[in-house]
Amino acid sequence: QYIAERLGKGSKTVDLELEAQIEVLRDMQRKYANILRLAKNLNSHFCNVVQTQRALGEAFSEQAQRSPELQEEFSYNCETQRALVKNGEVLLGAMNFFTSTINTLCNKTMEDTLLTVRQYEAARLEYDAYRNEMEALQLAPRESTSASKVDGSKRKFDEHKVKFEKLRADVSIKLKFLDENRVKVMHKQLLLFHNAVSAYFTGNDSALEATLKQFNIKLKPANTEKPSWIEQ
Amino acid sequence: QYIAERLGKGSKTVDLELEAQIEVLRDMQRKYANILRLAKNLNSHFCNVVQTQRALGEAFSEQAQRSPELQEEFSYNCETQRALVKNGEVLLGAMNFFTSTINTLCNKTMEDTLLTVRQYEAARLEYDAYRNEMEALQLAPRESTSASKVDGSKRKFDEHKVKFEKLRADVSIKLKFLDENRVKVMHKQLLLFHNAVSAYFTGNDSALEATLKQFNIKLKPANTEKPSWIEQ
Repeated sequence: QYIAERLGKGSKTVDLELEAQIEVLRDMQRKYANILRLAKNLNSHFCNVVQTQRALGEAFSEQAQRSPELQEEFSYNCETQRALVKNGEVLLGAMNFFTSTINTLCNKTMEDTLLTVRQYEAARLEYDAYRNEMEALQLAPRESTSASKVDGSKRKFDEHKVKFEKLRADVSIKLKFLDENRVKVMHKQLLLFHNAVSAYFTGNDSALEATLKQFNIKLKPANTEKPSWIEQ
Repeated sequence: QYIAERLGKGSKTVDLELEAQIEVLRDMQRKYANILRLAKNLNSHFCNVVQTQRALGEAFSEQAQRSPELQEEFSYNCETQRALVKNGEVLLGAMNFFTSTINTLCNKTMEDTLLTVRQYEAARLEYDAYRNEMEALQLAPRESTSASKVDGSKRKFDEHKVKFEKLRADVSIKLKFLDENRVKVMHKQLLLFHNAVSAYFTGNDSALEATLKQFNIKLKPANTEKPSWIEQ
């Protein structure tokens, strides 16, 4: 049946609305995967920035102690870098939550629906194959075919019709739930991402902390460093 | 003479104050080279962040147009990323100026003084060698050495004494000027670095622009993009 369809032979059952929804989902998964890739890159580049700021803060601190003639200049630069490191770690926490959630949406939730879509597409192919076989038998001259052969074909067609229609319904429902879920998840994640990024890049530490609390994000207790100047 | 000194033989002329100053300079060059390395790394990681923010802004913009259900969420994220890219390029300009000036200080200005130091150290070695030779000849029994040999040795010693003392004076003056220059340059650069970083990370675009004007930094006109939302 697959080869017949490729060659333009044999009739094919098409659900235009469903096919369009599936195409939209496939395209959306590609686009979200791209956003995920960029967000992960941002996370990793930003992580490098924070690590370098930490080392630079230490280098400035050392010079502040060694260079009385430039003590003030090195000190305030050291304090700024340390404050950025502290807030940077909070932002990294928010960005990690963003990428991990988009990853689940893209590679688990969407993927699960697309698995059902692939099962539906295979069932559609089988269904059309049995349908075309049955129709050919029904159109053939009486003497060349036995009634039992026609009945057998009809039974197989019915079986695959049930399977196909069940999967079509599954796909339809999953697409609907996926879309509702996606909108809810993305609404929350885009709000988090925006609030965290805005708070960080306007130096608003308390808004940044509040955003993480709001979204219930716990930071890993990797912060075993000396307390930074801002806490003293 | 070098080998004799290594073996703890032969007397050595030592200018304790100058040696200490030279040691301080060598150590300082190492420390400043470390700050330069970190600042360059920061620059390059931050450049990656800005490039990723640009791509992410575009991806958000595309989704804002395609997803009516999440248009608002994608839009404000797109605008934030674009604003960060715009300010990020200004900060990169300031950081480039910082690294390029520290590079000159570390690898040209300090290096030039250290070249004179190495010439001085070589001259000191030669001077001590001729001095020890002459002293040995003067102490030797009269009959075993000729007066002309002593005179020749004395002449060579005098020549190298002049050369050595000239280089010692050169080093001393260069160290003094270098230190004045370093304090002036670093005072300016650390102020620029701090003001630019603070302005950027508090989202204060106008202070960031003002800092660049204050330090007379011209940005490369690489900004051939569409004007971002903030200018509209």
